Amino acid sequence: MKSITPELLEKATAARIAARSLRTASSHQKNSALQNIAEALLLHEDHLIESNEKDVSSAHDKKVDQSVVARLKLTSSKLQSMAEGIGRVIQLPDPVGEVFESNKLLNGIQLEKHRVPLGVIGTIFEARPEVPVDIASLCIKSGNSVVMRGGSEAKSTNFALGSLITDALSESAIPKESVKMISSSDRTLVQEMIKMDGHFDLIIPRGGANLIHFVASEATVPAITGGIGVCHIYLDDNIDLEMATRIIVNAKVQAPAVCNALDTVLINSSIDPEVVRKVCLALIEEGVELRCDARTISLVEPLGISSVKQATPQDFGHEFLDLIASIRMVDTLEEAIQHIEAHGSGHSEAIITNDIEKGNRFVSEIDAALVLVNASTRFNDGGQLGLGSEVAISTGKLHARGPMGLKELTSYKWVARGEGQVRE
Amino acid sequence: MKSITPELLEKATAARIAARSLRTASSHQKNSALQNIAEALLLHEDHLIESNEKDVSSAHDKKVDQSVVARLKLTSSKLQSMAEGIGRVIQLPDPVGEVFESNKLLNGIQLEKHRVPLGVIGTIFEARPEVPVDIASLCIKSGNSVVMRGGSEAKSTNFALGSLITDALSESAIPKESVKMISSSDRTLVQEMIKMDGHFDLIIPRGGANLIHFVASEATVPAITGGIGVCHIYLDDNIDLEMATRIIVNAKVQAPAVCNALDTVLINSSIDPEVVRKVCLALIEEGVELRCDARTISLVEPLGISSVKQATPQDFGHEFLDLIASIRMVDTLEEAIQHIEAHGSGHSEAIITNDIEKGNRFVSEIDAALVLVNASTRFNDGGQLGLGSEVAISTGKLHARGPMGLKELTSYKWVARGEGQVRE
Repeated sequence: MKSITPELLEKATAARIAARSLRTASSHQKNSALQNIAEALLLHEDHLIESNEKDVSSAHDKKVDQSVVARLKLTSSKLQSMAEGIGRVIQLPDPVGEVFESNKLLNGIQLEKHRVPLGVIGTIFEARPEVPVDIASLCIKSGNSVVMRGGSEAKSTNFALGSLITDALSESAIPKESVKMISSSDRTLVQEMIKMDGHFDLIIPRGGANLIHFVASEATVPAITGGIGVCHIYLDDNIDLEMATRIIVNAKVQAPAVCNALDTVLINSSIDPEVVRKVCLALIEEGVELRCDARTISLVEPLGISSVKQATPQDFGHEFLDLIASIRMVDTLEEAIQHIEAHGSGHSEAIITNDIEKGNRFVSEIDAALVLVNASTRFNDGGQLGLGSEVAISTGKLHARGPMGLKELTSYKWVARGEGQVRE
Repeated sequence: MKSITPELLEKATAARIAARSLRTASSHQKNSALQNIAEALLLHEDHLIESNEKDVSSAHDKKVDQSVVARLKLTSSKLQSMAEGIGRVIQLPDPVGEVFESNKLLNGIQLEKHRVPLGVIGTIFEARPEVPVDIASLCIKSGNSVVMRGGSEAKSTNFALGSLITDALSESAIPKESVKMISSSDRTLVQEMIKMDGHFDLIIPRGGANLIHFVASEATVPAITGGIGVCHIYLDDNIDLEMATRIIVNAKVQAPAVCNALDTVLINSSIDPEVVRKVCLALIEEGVELRCDARTISLVEPLGISSVKQATPQDFGHEFLDLIASIRMVDTLEEAIQHIEAHGSGHSEAIITNDIEKGNRFVSEIDAALVLVNASTRFNDGGQLGLGSEVAISTGKLHARGPMGLKELTSYKWVARGEGQVRE
């Protein structure tokens, strides 16, 4: 066992102790604490923005990518929306203590499952200041302590947010040690956290593909694998053109930089070539670069548009996170399913068809967090699917799959009440 | 990435391909395959026992512990009970395809969760020949492929069982690659298996504490942590003596070598000393060695019995797996809860009390896979709790806690059916 950085060990230990009282805290106590945090975010707006400006200016100095700076930058309206996000978590039902699967055994024992918090969550995030606030509020509401390690580029912001949360909790019935922000941005801490079995019950990595891959392949603490979406839409030959175009454009264009955005369109080769041209044109009009296989190229070539390129093998199974889509023609639903099996990341996969049987077959055979029939892949989101909020979208199959909200941050215990029953 | 032993890589890859058709196999197909295996076990009894005798005689030569030899030895009645076990799995409802949490979103999307297999399970077991047959039948029924690596001491038995299962599957609609037995007993294979992310969806270690600890601390593939039970019973001062004695004796004596057996009795110090003496005598009469703290010793000393010893600190938080129990007196329910929090393994924890409030407090504050009121810890078992069968008893909090049966070998996918809905 390698030694653990003292700050990390101390904070994880304090969070474990806090978790013991947090797990039996009442909904009212947890909601009041959340309300304190939301109010503090607005009250200390000036201080938070000032702290954040240090990070932003140092990011400018380091010539960090503009998109990263935009994510890092804290504004009055971002703070407002963070506070509103906490408000929504307050409104969500408390999952802790829910009794489910209750039944009486033949020997008279009353058996139940009670929903309980996981314990101590570790989260590793990068630059976005919304992430620690989102995760802290969902952890508190679900009765879990959380230790958070943010990226070095947001060091000053994270320190300010961590202190603010601690102060807000100090004036609540929830232990202030329930949310701990790690101040060191030493990278070895990430490596340590993901191997601290017994200290952490779950690791939630929130960041780019490199972080997710690293955690997935190295963590011995259970960790959420997710956030990488290579998403397909299969366009059957029996479709309504207007609906197909609407779904495909929405899935690709509405938020191209997120994990549930469309990457590849698979098109049944029996389709009317005019339909293919219209779908492609609709995407091109929205500024999407198309990377097409030879058969699709031959159909859209007459359009003479420069943003249509020949696809390379690397364009399939690739998450573009940009206004780019690859297109491939397949001869059968079977071939589409095989393509998705080989190239998908198990995130969001959709079919567009008027044929109910084909829709059912797609649903039955595709193994992904969310399988859709005639709807946009963009619906794979905790808010959209009715969870209220989410800590991550899991593409792993253990524990929770798809959007993870409050319930997915809990476990359960079995409870047996008897009158002296013994085992024969 | 270290290289993987070719046999292991080939078998895991074959199992992954098999999993694709196994996951959509019908209940009838899976049950027929299971029936073939059950019949083959009885039909090839002579061959299996012969193969097993090689292992047993080599264990004798190596002067392996008698209890290990007893677990290893295959008999006609063991085979009969293994076949009956498969029969029970056939009778269990098929969890795959179950639709749950169905609801219609405001935008008209019909949302459901569908239960699906996990994919490929890896199991590491030691000498008991029942284990691979149990696990294979539960994996097949839940639509999962399985790769099994048994201990070297059961090499010949495992080879015979693996071939028998493959042959039985060959005459069924289930791919014969669904169950793969690793022939090499090289220990490095265990190290490799638990880091084969992407190849295995879940690792189930079945064996002693060393194996479990090794897998828990080293595995990067999700793994079930379980099988280690440091179990407590708290004896309140408001109790029915007959019931208390019955529960405590059953929990300790009925099967002392298993994980849900009682290890430590915590006794409220306000209890009538006569009750303590009677409970201790009842255990002693069953051959249990008692290791008592000073206060308990002072109460039972007048009995002048040699099997009562002074407890050392190591006797608390220890899984005895034998006819030994430690006893400690506490002044309050609070102190009992703190003792269990500090020394328990989160397996099975019980309170004996006539006070409903105290029972409720114990249930609310103790965090364990199974919390019992007025019943024996021995009930923490898949069969006893109505799951029909189990692959393991998990003390981890992710995915499944407590007995893991068929449902616990599944995940789910979200299914959304729309009519052209897109995200605003």
